[in-house]
Amino acid sequence: MITQISPLGSMDLLSQLEVDMLKRTASSDLYQLFRNCSLAVLNSGSQTDSSQELLSRFESFDINVLRRERGVKLELINPPEEAFVDGRIIRALQANLFAVLRDILFVNGQIDHAGRFQHQHVADSVHITNLVFSILRNARALHIGEEPNTVVCWGGHSINAVEYQYCRNVGSQLGLRELNICTGCGPGVMEAPMKGAAVGHAQQRYKEGRFIGLTEPSIIAAEPPNPLVNELIIMPDIEKRLEAFVRIAHGIIIFPGGVGTAEELLYLLGILMNPHNRDQVLPLILTGPKESADYFRVLDEFIVGTLGDEARQHYSIIIDDAPEVARLMKKAMPAVKEYRRETGDAYSFNWALRIAPDLQMPFMPSHENMANLNLSPDQPAEQLAAALRRAFSGIVAGNVKDVGIRAIKEKGPYKLHGNPEIMRRMDDLLQGFVAQHRMKLPGSAYIPCYEIIK
Amino acid sequence: MITQISPLGSMDLLSQLEVDMLKRTASSDLYQLFRNCSLAVLNSGSQTDSSQELLSRFESFDINVLRRERGVKLELINPPEEAFVDGRIIRALQANLFAVLRDILFVNGQIDHAGRFQHQHVADSVHITNLVFSILRNARALHIGEEPNTVVCWGGHSINAVEYQYCRNVGSQLGLRELNICTGCGPGVMEAPMKGAAVGHAQQRYKEGRFIGLTEPSIIAAEPPNPLVNELIIMPDIEKRLEAFVRIAHGIIIFPGGVGTAEELLYLLGILMNPHNRDQVLPLILTGPKESADYFRVLDEFIVGTLGDEARQHYSIIIDDAPEVARLMKKAMPAVKEYRRETGDAYSFNWALRIAPDLQMPFMPSHENMANLNLSPDQPAEQLAAALRRAFSGIVAGNVKDVGIRAIKEKGPYKLHGNPEIMRRMDDLLQGFVAQHRMKLPGSAYIPCYEIIK
Amino acid sequence: MITQISPLGSMDLLSQLEVDMLKRTASSDLYQLFRNCSLAVLNSGSQTDSSQELLSRFESFDINVLRRERGVKLELINPPEEAFVDGRIIRALQANLFAVLRDILFVNGQIDHAGRFQHQHVADSVHITNLVFSILRNARALHIGEEPNTVVCWGGHSINAVEYQYCRNVGSQLGLRELNICTGCGPGVMEAPMKGAAVGHAQQRYKEGRFIGLTEPSIIAAEPPNPLVNELIIMPDIEKRLEAFVRIAHGIIIFPGGVGTAEELLYLLGILMNPHNRDQVLPLILTGPKESADYFRVLDEFIVGTLGDEARQHYSIIIDDAPEVARLMKKAMPAVKEYRRETGDAYSFNWALRIAPDLQMPFMPSHENMANLNLSPDQPAEQLAAALRRAFSGIVAGNVKDVGIRAIKEKGPYKLHGNPEIMRRMDDLLQGFVAQHRMKLPGSAYIPCYEIIK
Amino acid sequence: MITQISPLGSMDLLSQLEVDMLKRTASSDLYQLFRNCSLAVLNSGSQTDSSQELLSRFESFDINVLRRERGVKLELINPPEEAFVDGRIIRALQANLFAVLRDILFVNGQIDHAGRFQHQHVADSVHITNLVFSILRNARALHIGEEPNTVVCWGGHSINAVEYQYCRNVGSQLGLRELNICTGCGPGVMEAPMKGAAVGHAQQRYKEGRFIGLTEPSIIAAEPPNPLVNELIIMPDIEKRLEAFVRIAHGIIIFPGGVGTAEELLYLLGILMNPHNRDQVLPLILTGPKESADYFRVLDEFIVGTLGDEARQHYSIIIDDAPEVARLMKKAMPAVKEYRRETGDAYSFNWALRIAPDLQMPFMPSHENMANLNLSPDQPAEQLAAALRRAFSGIVAGNVKDVGIRAIKEKGPYKLHGNPEIMRRMDDLLQGFVAQHRMKLPGSAYIPCYEIIK
Repeated sequence: MITQISPLGSMDLLSQLEVDMLKRTASSDLYQLFRNCSLAVLNSGSQTDSSQELLSRFESFDINVLRRERGVKLELINPPEEAFVDGRIIRALQANLFAVLRDILFVNGQIDHAGRFQHQHVADSVHITNLVFSILRNARALHIGEEPNTVVCWGGHSINAVEYQYCRNVGSQLGLRELNICTGCGPGVMEAPMKGAAVGHAQQRYKEGRFIGLTEPSIIAAEPPNPLVNELIIMPDIEKRLEAFVRIAHGIIIFPGGVGTAEELLYLLGILMNPHNRDQVLPLILTGPKESADYFRVLDEFIVGTLGDEARQHYSIIIDDAPEVARLMKKAMPAVKEYRRETGDAYSFNWALRIAPDLQMPFMPSHENMANLNLSPDQPAEQLAAALRRAFSGIVAGNVKDVGIRAIKEKGPYKLHGNPEIMRRMDDLLQGFVAQHRMKLPGSAYIPCYEIIK
Repeated sequence: MITQISPLGSMDLLSQLEVDMLKRTASSDLYQLFRNCSLAVLNSGSQTDSSQELLSRFESFDINVLRRERGVKLELINPPEEAFVDGRIIRALQANLFAVLRDILFVNGQIDHAGRFQHQHVADSVHITNLVFSILRNARALHIGEEPNTVVCWGGHSINAVEYQYCRNVGSQLGLRELNICTGCGPGVMEAPMKGAAVGHAQQRYKEGRFIGLTEPSIIAAEPPNPLVNELIIMPDIEKRLEAFVRIAHGIIIFPGGVGTAEELLYLLGILMNPHNRDQVLPLILTGPKESADYFRVLDEFIVGTLGDEARQHYSIIIDDAPEVARLMKKAMPAVKEYRRETGDAYSFNWALRIAPDLQMPFMPSHENMANLNLSPDQPAEQLAAALRRAFSGIVAGNVKDVGIRAIKEKGPYKLHGNPEIMRRMDDLLQGFVAQHRMKLPGSAYIPCYEIIK
Repeated sequence: MITQISPLGSMDLLSQLEVDMLKRTASSDLYQLFRNCSLAVLNSGSQTDSSQELLSRFESFDINVLRRERGVKLELINPPEEAFVDGRIIRALQANLFAVLRDILFVNGQIDHAGRFQHQHVADSVHITNLVFSILRNARALHIGEEPNTVVCWGGHSINAVEYQYCRNVGSQLGLRELNICTGCGPGVMEAPMKGAAVGHAQQRYKEGRFIGLTEPSIIAAEPPNPLVNELIIMPDIEKRLEAFVRIAHGIIIFPGGVGTAEELLYLLGILMNPHNRDQVLPLILTGPKESADYFRVLDEFIVGTLGDEARQHYSIIIDDAPEVARLMKKAMPAVKEYRRETGDAYSFNWALRIAPDLQMPFMPSHENMANLNLSPDQPAEQLAAALRRAFSGIVAGNVKDVGIRAIKEKGPYKLHGNPEIMRRMDDLLQGFVAQHRMKLPGSAYIPCYEIIK
Repeated sequence: MITQISPLGSMDLLSQLEVDMLKRTASSDLYQLFRNCSLAVLNSGSQTDSSQELLSRFESFDINVLRRERGVKLELINPPEEAFVDGRIIRALQANLFAVLRDILFVNGQIDHAGRFQHQHVADSVHITNLVFSILRNARALHIGEEPNTVVCWGGHSINAVEYQYCRNVGSQLGLRELNICTGCGPGVMEAPMKGAAVGHAQQRYKEGRFIGLTEPSIIAAEPPNPLVNELIIMPDIEKRLEAFVRIAHGIIIFPGGVGTAEELLYLLGILMNPHNRDQVLPLILTGPKESADYFRVLDEFIVGTLGDEARQHYSIIIDDAPEVARLMKKAMPAVKEYRRETGDAYSFNWALRIAPDLQMPFMPSHENMANLNLSPDQPAEQLAAALRRAFSGIVAGNVKDVGIRAIKEKGPYKLHGNPEIMRRMDDLLQGFVAQHRMKLPGSAYIPCYEIIK
């Protein structure tokens, strides 16, 4: 089956040079990236934890960029059937396909121009933030006229029905207050608040509802954009995706999740505890239904036990009170706005937030890098937070990402070193996640991908 | 608590004459109608089957129309708290309040001008249809540019979770095909297809989704507009509401319900079996989950048993196949369009459909009128259908409407006469509905409001 | 030549009853009104002072209202060729045709309903204002969201090139300040400020520019809407047209003109000098190029000589300073807004302005009525202003309106009685207008239609 | 006087890197370019032929780019007063200022990335066209949904009143046919068709009218965007500006002008006579009022005399018939569309048109380059056309551009060599232009900047 798809939303005209970039023959890597992300988008309906599974199921899938008189077209060869209704592609998927094209072309163009910037530390930080900004701007995700209203929701993509309903309720309450939602764009917590907010927006006749999905190539197949995402943005890697989240956020809610969620909280604390960010206004709420109270109790204990009491001032925990969560978020928005205005910072992009290089640089979870992490208490809290974040990041890779799964298959589980007390708390936390089935999608047994070397 | 509400959607400026009409002192009836409908709208969130209950709970509620420099405002005194989020009225309710104002003023103006038209039969029919048209046009519900795409969904406001989910799935499939939904605007079947379609529309980036709720003053309190209704229209009585449904419909789906649903099917058959409508294209599908197959089997048997085999050619029954229902509806739209074009009829209002006076005239379910219904087989099928419809209509009134409930309290159950075979089938059908708890909202015991006099 | 025209702008669906109203056979008067106004609209391009000339040139023109599946259509038989470009009707004319249809149907419906209201004086005034309001509201000319910004421009439809350019400059300056223009919708002063304002609006990227043309059936043929009018409204008669002007205006500019202009100024003074309107904020500026300074000097002298010095406080005269005129208008808008807000009056319709019945009632310029006018100084100034207004109104009718021209042909010139001093001033004024060629379109010799009986 | 200006239209957020680029201290050249173009835009109202004059009049003018919470702002220090109305900048100028910022930043970014491409001939042509495309795309000037409808109008910026009115009439006829206008964005022929088309568009209620002004830094001061330009694009140099014109055009009209107009016609013939473009569909009409018939007769003779009879098949000359010009243009649009569709070329950008390198490369009109032009008949016609174009280009520079005026002051007039017959015809043509006052703005005496060395 071959079909041609017209642009929706993002792209319009391409130059011949740009079309050539994405030819299968030209630059095999770039073409593969484009093909695989496109396939993930088209496969949004079905759920799988493994990109390999997806890719092997659609080996005959192919995609070509064509120039036509009304602009570019995409030719799809053997696409997943679920992407179509009565033979016509679902428009959300159509738009997302062109978002993939837009972001891959743009990032490639930028990186080509700027050269790689792995090694010059000072300049790098500026250039990375600039690249994150440019990608978001090119995706028209930075709206000038808008008051602060973007709530980033983090949490697991594999949550139970009670948690799902709670996330949806919070979403509904956020939507009733005309707040927009930004998530990592998969199922579970990435979806539920959007579903709720869509109804809340409808009740408020709020037509400009934004459901931003921020993803990256290595995760998009496992967590394809849910049907409500109306702005899909593909960041080039996990660190830039995280940076995009925190710079675009006017508030952040963390719902129950697993290791990934803990990683995200540590990343945030690594930033918020940085003395440069002392005055930043960025409300952070951890919330779940009463059935999930334990999750946050354990996480809170781990944070306090490793990073100290002062970590707590950067977040509040609210259990089983969706309207209160939304009320607090809404109430914080004027303070967010005021701080941006005072510092002359953009409402739509938090330039002033300092993100230390060790949170910003890509972390390659090789066995060596994992083993070298400094997990000791003899360092500023924000640096320990960053190191813990990397440890958890590796574990997520080992669970659901191609490269991680392959590395574990080859070399066995990661070995982690560190302060015994910290290691003990970490082990407790992770065992707890396993016990609560928070490490994998339901149905498959979990095999740990790490060992704590005490 | 007193609050002032600005217009949203419908109304804008009122003349002093119009404002005077709705003064509490001026015309007490009109004011009461306006006040009670407004209260019902404001109370949308909560569910009750009894308007009396609602009215007695908010006796201190009051509403005033004010003229202001930017147009009219509504002053609300002691409105239900659930209508507000953080002190601001929910915009869907705000819009619906002004829809109430718009329709009550308009209908009152029209009827004043035209005089009452109870007694001149030929002219009446033309004028009633004209009034239905004028109300819909004044509500801007008749869109010229639109291709046929409006699916009327009928069924119970009190359905079980399985049926609810099925209705939602059908809605989702309709939404994916960019069809719009029109219902009676309460909970249950009035809500579920809209919820589904909203997600389907979002997936198709279809921004113009219409969720039309057609109601009337005597039912609005018991079935207040659900949060997704974005076009609320208050018809002056049940017959004009039914006429509005069939003239605005490009297709009709009947989901499981109770007596009201049977009434609606009989009303439709009274129209579709009319020889004048022989060539009309108006797809009618009865559908439900496999768990509800019996409901339609019994209803189908009743129809065939009373109206004969030929009744069947006007509807199809599809069990447990949501995509198929939507596919058939979508596929029928070009034929609907073609028929309208051939006959020069409006896409947005089916002028050509003949509705006999006995279906069009208000039926007052007095004990006398109920007792006088001709429920015998010695008449054309469409006339028997109309008589059966009135019988069921009375029973619905006896169950949930003020006037009916009061009449029953006073004079005891309605007495129905008729052909014993028909009466037997009717009794069977109704007993079945009682057994299936299809006569009342869950939680209250059902007391029959009729007796069959064989 | 026969062609069918689809709706643009105003009308959409008509009921069969409405279509029947405009059938040629049904109600000959209404049909003739509709046909003649439509012909005037179609003939906008060409200039003639005489409706008779127009009507006789297009005797074979005919127009039919058709109902079609996408709403109403107009069938034109033998329309003027200038209305078409390459066989397609110019859209401004298309929209104006449907504005004619809209207003004629609406006014006819209202008057039918309300009955004629010639004789009950108190109720009449309320109902007339209400009718003016309803016509404007039905034409969607009363915008709620808009701040006061509508400048009514009055003056001659037959002005010289210097005056035309000056009016255009004033329009340009008004447009640069994002003010909208409302005129009587013919050529000359009715057109020039719109042409200027269109460029001013373009420079300010102001897309919502409104160019409102208010006309009435007896004048539309002689002063057809110019090409820039984007809201055409046909009021039922001259008095309601004048009332519409002053109730919609947030400010009024009077450019050079002739008798009609003097009439309009007298009408305004009859209102503004009414003690009930003492606090009204309605800026009124008389302005022209330096070459026209004399016109205003003479007019000013006439006003002061007849109505006294206090008349002067209601207007300012600005000679040859277009930016200053616009600046003053713009500067007055906040005061206009403030007054409306204080009195709770609508921004878009000046309900509070008192218009005395003798200014509001249609004045039929029969020879008898003209002879009976009380043109003596022994009455309040506003009443004398009203009487003088009627005198001038009759003279305009005698010059350019069918009925007046016929009456003069038949019975000779009007005879006017009154105070000799007032009569002398009036005679001077009128002789001056004749001398300045301000009584007719250039090219035709002027024959006076009145005699002053001193 | 210091004032801050918010974005309108184009720019939104800038990164810190981008703001730094335009700091006065950073890169003096880029800053000067930005400042001078901005000043030219702000000075749009006044007319001068000399950029030097403009720059010296506003030496104290300064402009700074500021980052603010709602995006970038421009700080203007001592801007021309005419740019403001009652203290607020005119929005067309505001939008144009940000267009300047957008294009200067973009071109600078592209050229930085791509490196300079003066010397590799084959790659250059592709990259130049790609750059032209990218600049237009970045300016959002390439609309996908649009049918071919862009008419490029060329001709003099200094024409007489009769010619001006004729250009306006042609514009009005184009506007009535819903065609858009693209010009070089100064006064005269750059303005008149836009003024006419604006009224034509208004008559057709065509809201999307595009008035594209293509300019370049060296000409913008002498020919600032007229008030109707609603899309201003600053191309980096004259050759890319010309390329943008012909690739964006769906049809071209040449009105009377002077040397620049002859240059443009020669440029076009250099392209259209290229055998590669044999099948291109690009209607080219030369037109003027009957008073200007001689201009085209002389030009036509020069073309035929130098390039041969076959040159004539690429253009038609229409004298004094504005509707016919517009009718022909409109009629050609389907053929333009068809050719693009057949060749798979974009409707909005003519990729397929071959432009030879000698037409594409910047021509520096040094005395040496001028002296070296091959103006002999012993070459293909399209190459002779290109060489003649360069000769005329130099003469335009000598007349109105800074660099040219300075060079002439220093080294005396250009010396041109060539075939005596061609030189004679050229001399005749130029003397004719001088005699017709077509070489300078009215009021200043013309001193020739060239000598023909026969």
